[in-house]
Amino acid sequence: MSSSQPIFRLWTSCFLQATLDYLEGQVHLITSFANSTKIVIGVACLLKLRKNNFSTVEARTRHYDWEVNYEYKSPDCYKKLAITINGRTPGPTILAQQGDTIIVKLQNNLLTENVAIHWHGIRQIGTPWSDGTGGFTQCPIQPGEKLIYKFVVDRAGTYTYHGHYGMQREAGLYGTIIVLLPNGVSEPFSYDYDRNIILNDWYHKSSDEQATGLSSIPFVFVGEPQSLLINGKGKYNCSLLTTPGACNATNPQCSPHVLTVVPGKTYRLRIGSLTALSALSFEIEGHDMTVVEADGSYVEPFVVRNLYIYSGETYSVLVKANQDPSRNYWITINVVSRKPATPTGLAIFNYYPNHPQKPPPTVPTTGPLWNDTTSRLAQSIALKARQGFIDTPPLTSDRAIVLLNTQNKIDGYYKWALNNLSLTFPTTPYLIALKENLTDAFDQNPPPDGYDFASYDIYRVAKNVNATSSNRIYRLRFNSTVDIILQNANTMTVNNSETHPWHLHGHEFWVLGYGMGKYNMSSDGKKYNLVNPIMKNTVPLHPYGWTALRFQANNPGVWAFHCHVESHFYMGMAVVFEEGIEKVGNLPSSIMGCGETKSYNRPRP
Amino acid sequence: MSSSQPIFRLWTSCFLQATLDYLEGQVHLITSFANSTKIVIGVACLLKLRKNNFSTVEARTRHYDWEVNYEYKSPDCYKKLAITINGRTPGPTILAQQGDTIIVKLQNNLLTENVAIHWHGIRQIGTPWSDGTGGFTQCPIQPGEKLIYKFVVDRAGTYTYHGHYGMQREAGLYGTIIVLLPNGVSEPFSYDYDRNIILNDWYHKSSDEQATGLSSIPFVFVGEPQSLLINGKGKYNCSLLTTPGACNATNPQCSPHVLTVVPGKTYRLRIGSLTALSALSFEIEGHDMTVVEADGSYVEPFVVRNLYIYSGETYSVLVKANQDPSRNYWITINVVSRKPATPTGLAIFNYYPNHPQKPPPTVPTTGPLWNDTTSRLAQSIALKARQGFIDTPPLTSDRAIVLLNTQNKIDGYYKWALNNLSLTFPTTPYLIALKENLTDAFDQNPPPDGYDFASYDIYRVAKNVNATSSNRIYRLRFNSTVDIILQNANTMTVNNSETHPWHLHGHEFWVLGYGMGKYNMSSDGKKYNLVNPIMKNTVPLHPYGWTALRFQANNPGVWAFHCHVESHFYMGMAVVFEEGIEKVGNLPSSIMGCGETKSYNRPRP
Repeated sequence: MSSSQPIFRLWTSCFLQATLDYLEGQVHLITSFANSTKIVIGVACLLKLRKNNFSTVEARTRHYDWEVNYEYKSPDCYKKLAITINGRTPGPTILAQQGDTIIVKLQNNLLTENVAIHWHGIRQIGTPWSDGTGGFTQCPIQPGEKLIYKFVVDRAGTYTYHGHYGMQREAGLYGTIIVLLPNGVSEPFSYDYDRNIILNDWYHKSSDEQATGLSSIPFVFVGEPQSLLINGKGKYNCSLLTTPGACNATNPQCSPHVLTVVPGKTYRLRIGSLTALSALSFEIEGHDMTVVEADGSYVEPFVVRNLYIYSGETYSVLVKANQDPSRNYWITINVVSRKPATPTGLAIFNYYPNHPQKPPPTVPTTGPLWNDTTSRLAQSIALKARQGFIDTPPLTSDRAIVLLNTQNKIDGYYKWALNNLSLTFPTTPYLIALKENLTDAFDQNPPPDGYDFASYDIYRVAKNVNATSSNRIYRLRFNSTVDIILQNANTMTVNNSETHPWHLHGHEFWVLGYGMGKYNMSSDGKKYNLVNPIMKNTVPLHPYGWTALRFQANNPGVWAFHCHVESHFYMGMAVVFEEGIEKVGNLPSSIMGCGETKSYNRPRP
Repeated sequence: MSSSQPIFRLWTSCFLQATLDYLEGQVHLITSFANSTKIVIGVACLLKLRKNNFSTVEARTRHYDWEVNYEYKSPDCYKKLAITINGRTPGPTILAQQGDTIIVKLQNNLLTENVAIHWHGIRQIGTPWSDGTGGFTQCPIQPGEKLIYKFVVDRAGTYTYHGHYGMQREAGLYGTIIVLLPNGVSEPFSYDYDRNIILNDWYHKSSDEQATGLSSIPFVFVGEPQSLLINGKGKYNCSLLTTPGACNATNPQCSPHVLTVVPGKTYRLRIGSLTALSALSFEIEGHDMTVVEADGSYVEPFVVRNLYIYSGETYSVLVKANQDPSRNYWITINVVSRKPATPTGLAIFNYYPNHPQKPPPTVPTTGPLWNDTTSRLAQSIALKARQGFIDTPPLTSDRAIVLLNTQNKIDGYYKWALNNLSLTFPTTPYLIALKENLTDAFDQNPPPDGYDFASYDIYRVAKNVNATSSNRIYRLRFNSTVDIILQNANTMTVNNSETHPWHLHGHEFWVLGYGMGKYNMSSDGKKYNLVNPIMKNTVPLHPYGWTALRFQANNPGVWAFHCHVESHFYMGMAVVFEEGIEKVGNLPSSIMGCGETKSYNRPRP
C-alpha cells in the first residue's frame, strides 16, 4: 500500500500527530494552557486510531537525517560541550511500527572524532553491519562523512540507541527507539497514554578527560556522576562552584522534566536507562507501578514502588494517576549499588490542572538503601515472561560458557577481564576480518569457556590480579543453544564486588536464573527457570552473584557481549561472539576504511 | 656505510650525546652543578665532532617511534588535557643531517580522534603522501592505528612539525626539526653553541570547545590566548581563577625555560613559532640578535633588538653573551598586530654561573607597540638572501594568481575566503582523488585567478560580505613559474585588517616584495626584488598590505597554501595547488580509508 492512498495518509497524519506529540512530551496544551484545542484533536485522533484496524497496512520505511555535532549544553545547569543529534541531547526519538525499515543517514560533523551509533535491542537480523559497534561491526564514521544505517525493527517494544565508540555515549549521544505493534494487534494491557522517560547520569569532565584518567598510572576513576538526568534534565547545585560562570541554575535547559497527567488516567511509562555508571532506583512518589514490559518482552505483571533499572535496560510500567490531584508529586531517581555521592535526580509528576512547576509539598525520597542487594536481586528474579507470551527456551544447551568477572591490572593499568582476558579490539573490525577471512587481524585462538572453578575464591581479592590483553573471540556453532553463566567476584578492593549490567548485541536471551555466591556446576543448573523465563538483552550481574542466560546462536554476524558501564567496557569488560559468519551477505564498503580495509577499488570496466 | 662500522658508531654516539644534549637543553650540568663531568665530555665530544670531517658518511635513516596520547599537562601552570608525543608537548626534536631519511612511526592512541602530522618546511619531493595534511594528502590516522611517515630532509635548516588535522596543533601537537649540514660543510657564520626555542600561544579551552564557538551562530571567537609559551613553558596567573584547583603556580612544568650561556660565547638560537593566533615579538633583554637564517635559507645578516615572528616561521639568530655576566636577563615574547590581552611570555637568559632561576633585576619589556605595522613591514623587507647563497628567481612568471583575503559569512557563519571562495576540503583527500582520477570527489571547476581589482575597496567592509563554500583547486602547469599576490583587505569590522602568515606546503618560494594598500597591477611588479629575494615557506601578509611570491611548480603532488592562524585555516582560509600529479608514484594504501577509499582488496593470487 503506497503512502499516497488516502486511508494511509489519514492514518499516518493522525498517528504521527498524536503519537509523536504524546510520546515525546511535546504537547504544549497541558503545560501551556493557551493551546487547548490541539490536545483534544490529538486525543480524538489517538482514540480513533486505537479503534481502527489497519491490519492491511504494509511495513514502511522511515527516513531520518541526523547530524552529529558538538554543542554547548547545560542539561544539569552546568555548561559543557555535549555531542548532539540535530541539536539535541537526548537525540530525537525513533518512532516506528513493527516490521518497519529504519534508515538513518548519520552525518558526522565532529571536527576530529569518529562516531558510531548502536541500536540497542534491535537484533539486526540480516544486517549485522548496521549494529553500530565501532571496531566490532564497522569502522567508525569519520569527520565530514556520512553512513547510512538501515535495519528492520522486527519486534514491538521499547529500545534505545547510543554512541558505541570510545566513550561518546556519555557525552550525550543517546536516545529512544519505540516500536509499536502492528495495526490491529493490541497490547495485553491497557492504558490511556504513552510517555517516554530516558535516564542518564552526567559528568562535567569530557569523555577524553575521563578516559585519560582511566588509562593513567596512577589510575584515576571517573568517580560518581555530578548529576542524574531524567529526559536530559538534571540540576547541579551551582553554588558548589566557586566559579559559577559555567553554571546557571535558571537556565531553562535544566528546568526539571514535567510529566503531566490527567487524574484518573493510566499512563504507560517507557523507561530506559543509559547511565555511564549508575544503577538506579526509579520512583513516583506515592504511586504504584505495574511492570509490564522489559527490553521488548511482556512481563507477567507485578507491582513495585521503586523500579531498579540498570544501564542498557528498558521497562514499561503502568501508572494510574489515582492520588490526590490537588498537588504534584516527585519523580525521583537515586543511585543504588554504589555508595551514592550524586544528588537525587528529579522530575515532576504533574496532576492537571496544577501548574506544572508547582513543587510537590514533600521532600523527595532518597531511595532505597544503596547496598540492599537482596531487594535488587528479588526484583531481578521477579521478572518473568507474561502468560500467553512465553517463548519457551530449549531445555538443554549445546555449550556453556562461564565468564568470571574480575577487576585486574595489565602492566600496572587497571582493567576488567573475563576469565582473565581483557578485551582490546583489533583495528580491523571483527565482522570484516571474519567475513573477509583476514586471519591476521586478531588472535585466532579461542578464549577459555571457564575459569579455575575449583580453587578461585570469589570473595577474596585475587592473589595475582594481573590479566592478559586479548582480542580472541568465541565462535559459536550456528543455531546452537548457548548458556552463559556470568560469575561475579571480589574486585581488587577488599570486601567489594560491583554490579555489572551485561548487554548482548544481536539477540535476546532467556534469563534462566540468578544466585548469590559461586555458581555450582552440579546443582544450580537444575534450578533454572525453564517455564517462563523473561527474554532480555541486558541483565544485571549482582555483587558476589551469578546470572545464567541462554540464547540461540541463530543470527549470522559478530556480536559484542559486554558490561554496559561505559568505563568498564573501555577497560576491557567485553567478549565477542561469532555465529554463521558464512551466511552474512556482502558487506557494504561504507563500513570499511580502517585496519586492513583502506584502498581504492577501481570500478570494473 | 653501515652503522656497525666503528667510526660511524663513534660519530653517532658522540654526535647524539653532545648535540641532543645541547639542542634540547637537557644538559643537567649547568643547571645542576653536581654533574659537571657530563658536560665536559659533551663539549669535548662536540668539539671533536666539529673538527673532524666525515664527508664520506652516507645519508642515514633515522627511526622514530611516536605515540600520540592525551595527557594532563600544565604548561602554563593550568592543568588541561594536551596532545602529547611520547608523553611530551612540545614533542621530541627531530635532529638529522641533510640527506637523511626520516621514518616516523606514528601510533595514534587517542580514543576517538584521528590525527595527522605535517612536516613543516620539508618539501616531500617524491613523497607527497607524507606531507601529513589531513584531508589534503592523506586520510587521517584513526585511533589505534599507525602510519609510517617516510621522507628525506634535503635541505639543512630549522623546521617544525605539527598536527595538521582539525585544530590539534594548538592542543600541544608540535615540535622542532633541525637539519644539520652535511659533514665537511660549514655554515657561513660562526657560533659556539646551538639552542632551540619553540614559541607558542596557549588556550585553556579545548580545541573542540574553540571549534564549536567558531562554527556557532552567534560566532564565538577563540579570543586572545591565556598564555605565551617558550619551549612549552608559560605562566598563567593562577590567582585570576576563583577555582585555583586546576592551576598551580609551583608546578615545575611551568617553571620558566632557562637558557644558560657562558659569558663571551656566541649562541645560535633556532627560533620557531607555531602559535595558534598570535604574531610575536621576541627579545633578549639588552642583547642584539643577528638574523642569519629564515625558514632554512641563509639571510644577509642584519641586527635587531626584537625579532618579529609569525606562526609557521623559523629563524636563526646569533646572540653573543656579551653583557654584564653577574646577572640574568629576560627573554620575552609579546603579542603584536592584535591588541594584546595576554601577559608577556618569559624565559631566563642565564649567565653561567648565576643561579638559573635568579630573577633578572629588571621589569620584562612589554615589547614594541602592537600596532606598529610599519616596523613589522620594515623587518619583513629587510630579509634578503645572503650573498653567496642567492638562488636567483626566474625573471618572469607564467601565471599570476591574486588572492584577495577577506573575512566573510556563509549562511550566517563566519568564514575567511580567497577571491570569495572559502575552502572546505572533500572527504576524499585531494592527492588521492587526483591520482585516482576521482572527478566526483570535488568541484573540477577552477577557482578564480583574481578578484574585481577595479572596484573592490580594500579599506572598507565589503558591501556584501557573503562568500561561497568551495573545494576547487588551482591546477598548475608542471615546471611553470607561478606568482602569488596576497592582497589584504578590511575585515567585517570597520577599520580593521589582520595579519595573515601564509604557508606553502611542498615548496619554498621567493619573496618578491611587500607593499601597503592595493597591489597595482601595472607598477608594483616592476619593484620586485629579483636580485636577492629570500626563499621562505611562510610569509606574513600585513594589514591592508600585499605580499608577492614566486615559486616553481616543480614538485609533483597536491599542496596546501593557507593562513597559518589555526582558526583562520579552520574557517576556510586556504587554497590548494596541484602540479605534476601524473608524475606522483603509487600512493601507499596506508594513507587511504576515508571518502571513496574504503574497501578491502583481496591479495591477488
